[in-house]
Amino acid sequence: MNVVVQNIDRAEQEIIDGLAALGVSTVHEAQGRKGLLADYMRPIYSGVRIAGSAVTISAPPCDNWMLHVAIEQVKPGDILVLAPTSPSNSGYFGDLLATSAKARGCKGLVIDAGTRDVADLREMQFPVWSKAVFAQGTVKETLGSVNVPVVCAGELVNAGDVIIADDDGVCVVRREEAADVLEKARAREANEAEKRAKLASGVLGLDMYQMRERLAEKGLKYV
Amino acid sequence: MNVVVQNIDRAEQEIIDGLAALGVSTVHEAQGRKGLLADYMRPIYSGVRIAGSAVTISAPPCDNWMLHVAIEQVKPGDILVLAPTSPSNSGYFGDLLATSAKARGCKGLVIDAGTRDVADLREMQFPVWSKAVFAQGTVKETLGSVNVPVVCAGELVNAGDVIIADDDGVCVVRREEAADVLEKARAREANEAEKRAKLASGVLGLDMYQMRERLAEKGLKYV
Amino acid sequence: MNVVVQNIDRAEQEIIDGLAALGVSTVHEAQGRKGLLADYMRPIYSGVRIAGSAVTISAPPCDNWMLHVAIEQVKPGDILVLAPTSPSNSGYFGDLLATSAKARGCKGLVIDAGTRDVADLREMQFPVWSKAVFAQGTVKETLGSVNVPVVCAGELVNAGDVIIADDDGVCVVRREEAADVLEKARAREANEAEKRAKLASGVLGLDMYQMRERLAEKGLKYV
Amino acid sequence: MNVVVQNIDRAEQEIIDGLAALGVSTVHEAQGRKGLLADYMRPIYSGVRIAGSAVTISAPPCDNWMLHVAIEQVKPGDILVLAPTSPSNSGYFGDLLATSAKARGCKGLVIDAGTRDVADLREMQFPVWSKAVFAQGTVKETLGSVNVPVVCAGELVNAGDVIIADDDGVCVVRREEAADVLEKARAREANEAEKRAKLASGVLGLDMYQMRERLAEKGLKYV
Amino acid sequence: MNVVVQNIDRAEQEIIDGLAALGVSTVHEAQGRKGLLADYMRPIYSGVRIAGSAVTISAPPCDNWMLHVAIEQVKPGDILVLAPTSPSNSGYFGDLLATSAKARGCKGLVIDAGTRDVADLREMQFPVWSKAVFAQGTVKETLGSVNVPVVCAGELVNAGDVIIADDDGVCVVRREEAADVLEKARAREANEAEKRAKLASGVLGLDMYQMRERLAEKGLKYV
Amino acid sequence: MNVVVQNIDRAEQEIIDGLAALGVSTVHEAQGRKGLLADYMRPIYSGVRIAGSAVTISAPPCDNWMLHVAIEQVKPGDILVLAPTSPSNSGYFGDLLATSAKARGCKGLVIDAGTRDVADLREMQFPVWSKAVFAQGTVKETLGSVNVPVVCAGELVNAGDVIIADDDGVCVVRREEAADVLEKARAREANEAEKRAKLASGVLGLDMYQMRERLAEKGLKYV
Repeated sequence: MNVVVQNIDRAEQEIIDGLAALGVSTVHEAQGRKGLLADYMRPIYSGVRIAGSAVTISAPPCDNWMLHVAIEQVKPGDILVLAPTSPSNSGYFGDLLATSAKARGCKGLVIDAGTRDVADLREMQFPVWSKAVFAQGTVKETLGSVNVPVVCAGELVNAGDVIIADDDGVCVVRREEAADVLEKARAREANEAEKRAKLASGVLGLDMYQMRERLAEKGLKYV
Repeated sequence: MNVVVQNIDRAEQEIIDGLAALGVSTVHEAQGRKGLLADYMRPIYSGVRIAGSAVTISAPPCDNWMLHVAIEQVKPGDILVLAPTSPSNSGYFGDLLATSAKARGCKGLVIDAGTRDVADLREMQFPVWSKAVFAQGTVKETLGSVNVPVVCAGELVNAGDVIIADDDGVCVVRREEAADVLEKARAREANEAEKRAKLASGVLGLDMYQMRERLAEKGLKYV
Repeated sequence: MNVVVQNIDRAEQEIIDGLAALGVSTVHEAQGRKGLLADYMRPIYSGVRIAGSAVTISAPPCDNWMLHVAIEQVKPGDILVLAPTSPSNSGYFGDLLATSAKARGCKGLVIDAGTRDVADLREMQFPVWSKAVFAQGTVKETLGSVNVPVVCAGELVNAGDVIIADDDGVCVVRREEAADVLEKARAREANEAEKRAKLASGVLGLDMYQMRERLAEKGLKYV
Repeated sequence: MNVVVQNIDRAEQEIIDGLAALGVSTVHEAQGRKGLLADYMRPIYSGVRIAGSAVTISAPPCDNWMLHVAIEQVKPGDILVLAPTSPSNSGYFGDLLATSAKARGCKGLVIDAGTRDVADLREMQFPVWSKAVFAQGTVKETLGSVNVPVVCAGELVNAGDVIIADDDGVCVVRREEAADVLEKARAREANEAEKRAKLASGVLGLDMYQMRERLAEKGLKYV
Repeated sequence: MNVVVQNIDRAEQEIIDGLAALGVSTVHEAQGRKGLLADYMRPIYSGVRIAGSAVTISAPPCDNWMLHVAIEQVKPGDILVLAPTSPSNSGYFGDLLATSAKARGCKGLVIDAGTRDVADLREMQFPVWSKAVFAQGTVKETLGSVNVPVVCAGELVNAGDVIIADDDGVCVVRREEAADVLEKARAREANEAEKRAKLASGVLGLDMYQMRERLAEKGLKYV
Repeated sequence: MNVVVQNIDRAEQEIIDGLAALGVSTVHEAQGRKGLLADYMRPIYSGVRIAGSAVTISAPPCDNWMLHVAIEQVKPGDILVLAPTSPSNSGYFGDLLATSAKARGCKGLVIDAGTRDVADLREMQFPVWSKAVFAQGTVKETLGSVNVPVVCAGELVNAGDVIIADDDGVCVVRREEAADVLEKARAREANEAEKRAKLASGVLGLDMYQMRERLAEKGLKYV
């Protein structure tokens, strides 16, 4: 059955903003090295970092009808996440849909398929992480669903989960774990600043992390 | 038999310029969603849009001899289109060939193989859409043909067909259909400007395209 | 057995600098079209050209421990070259390791696996050529070796070999052949300047290289 | 946190057997064209069809420790389903593990990674569907979890879901939907027998499905 | 416009049979090393060699409607050739369509997409060369065309061209060149029998083809 | 410089036979999990296991001339190992070359490129491990070298190294380490027979390897 779930829970805005400030790699580590979408998900232009609540779309291959349905469900700050039900590199998304999504306050799109009009999207600063850049047109014939759980680029994404996306890729954080993950990520970040300073001064990781003894125990030989 | 076809018909310049102004996605849609080369054909630098008549090259794998032959056949505004007879990612094209092609008025290269010297090509603003960036050298041992029909990245390209290439990829338009396609593409573009304004103002695609009834008929449930 | 080779021979600095000035494609041609790493090795940002002596790392899949060990072996101007013992796209390298490597004078990293924190690496201008950009974390559990011969992206690299890397990819030159390759590459470059000028003036490669006769002998027909 | 869930619900055996009799394509269609794992999941030998309850494994890349843990949780008729937390083609599974799994009544393995000893597995008739055949050894260093939800080859699999696997690939059916899916799949199968007889006698699908009118309406021209 | 071309010219049966007897590699060489479809086109089971006239299908992605239309156009001995208008690995073809095609005398299918029910197809001995084995269902919503020129797996195929397919892959021969290609292929084959006997007796290719002098001229050194 | 090294050292025949009896996975493990060629190297037919001394070939892309040169260097029991200097999937090898190689006592071919005539090769029982099956013809224009070190499918292979190949893939053992590796592999194999019997009787790996304590220490929870 094809459904549109209209009311979804979202994480608090300050938690989302906190995660955005930390970025994909730090958040991924902080939550136990999970939640990363596949490495073929690349930004159409670099230098952007966003976070937002996922409005999920399960769409048929080569059919972008559900994007129009999903945009109505977007609240300011949300991120659209589209997973096709069968692999597709068609260009589901372009400048008209981006205009509409942006007008609703959407911050970006994560799509396990193709996008197009990328020069326009870059100009209007609407970021997209996609599997392909491809102009191939899509149809509007078959229903899908909005705000149901989807598997996007190898990761389960529920509506309302927090999406973080930057030049390193895309990471999903469960809504109910977001506050805890933020806390851990901040601790990690704080911890890293000090390490960074030491390393920049020339201290070796071997010494800072006290690795020499364990390396020797494991049998590493210097020759 | 290996041939060089010297006289080819080209579309009128104003048609070519018209198509260049509209870009790959619009032209692809306007001609019935056909003509797109495979999505692995990517520009070596972004932000360029060109259109021109195809001077086609059928070349042996890892042999770039025919590029020299083809450049003599280039008229100002043309685009070189190279298809190897067997898959190859070797670097058929670099800064010397680009210098020569540019001196003849060539606007760019579309190659289902590799290119190299990409920093130089970007500096001299000679755009290339290719399957690979790879420095691997090629030989000059075996003949191919120039201005014969080729299959490049999955699409048939005839000499004199119009090539449009931008950040979305590459599209081919049959020479004899180019005027008609331009007309349809312009109509599409005109139509889109109005839609874009509406969507930017917050009108939903669901309403603008009157999709709600058909979605309900197909059985979409809002929960 | 897992070893760290501490004393390696390096090519002379002026030879390394000479190769850096010429770039990957020229050096690759000059040494007989060999030494290129696979074309999937791409820079995380464009516009950089470096050369340096290889400090090699043979690392287990998804385990970046040996990077810390290797950084101690870096002398100013060196380039780290990491090859996993089994294919991996995990993110072995990020901003902390880059900070440490840079503090030791390391010029860059060539890694047949993934890297992360690419926005930070671009900002700090630490160039990386990698197979993937991927935030996936790695462990520090299993030993590898440093400064042993490795096969990286399809090419054998010995510690102390000269690595040249730019927008065209990565090329390795044997240390003992570096002086000879530099001489040949300079000759090639000198030769190319004159050719470039001729081609820019409109002289055809067909005439400049006197190809017409050989093409006719091979049977090329103009129609 | 790493956990082993010891008590999982399974579908009734006769439902599982019923699904096994129908096969992947029929079951996939009957449940609304969902549940298929990616097409790179291929059997190591052909001619086998199995169904069973999923015992799921979330394993670190290149680490097969959790397979030993999971085998203890297998009940006769179960199928092991392993998903690495980061892409890996290493050979997690071979003849010793197969011997152990078979002794516990395990019917087969579905693994989004590599397997090895495939000649032995074929001889002992222990079927595996995998992403790769690769002898690369794995370690036993890092924990994962057993009987938690995993995303395997692009599909969510919960412990106790029904797995069907044959030469067409692998399909997952939610445990709670299995009875309903079986009913629909049997109806589809029954319906197909009659169609098959008609088509074998030379009746065209165009006539049997009464497609001619709709094709004409859509504008298909016979020339 | 979507059309079905009803009357196509076919090569003579004895020419087709002659080409079938020689196989893909010999025919490919005899026609000047052209006409090979991409190497990802693999048979679903091995040990079959067929040849026949192409009934071509241009189909939308993930939509197999046109297969029903095409089967009506099949004459005994023909081979169906399907090319999607955008890349797709969906399972366009299964046992019902195979039953229908076989009833019409169709010898096999060449499809640049997915097929399913492969165990059934093997049992009924209906050979298929495809890009993927995948059970993913398709729709019947959008028109395509039958017996128009298509680009299938990188090669242009016209309706009525001769298709040869075996364990080495798929080759297309232009209908109008088929008689000539057969003659050349037979000459090649006759020539090879004698060579095979010599090589089997231990004569080296170096001597049989008199390669030693040319190798020496090119500079090969024996050390 | 292109050379043919005529005298190479080989491992003793009984060592080679010993390694053949143990197979790829066991040998790979016994030598410390190294030496495996990439997993895309697949046998053209299954059920074969061979071992022999490598006669190596460095060949230009799409040029199979050096195979003829190499066959003269084959001694009974040797295995040909071909690595192209740039990636190629062309069909370097077919039934004529196999006939010649077999007449010289060659046991098989390992080629990081394409092979053809695979039905014939299967019938004559000449096994090949290759990256592709592809009929694409090659030329005989450019020299390569024989019995020099090559990188084949990601691994360094020296002339005279021992190659083991079976359904699990291909493994290389350094000639000078072969005796030692054989000893370790036999110890491993002996050790495995006992384990296999225990596991077959239902003993769990958890108990046989005494893993439970270490799992608990690492924090695994049973729920």
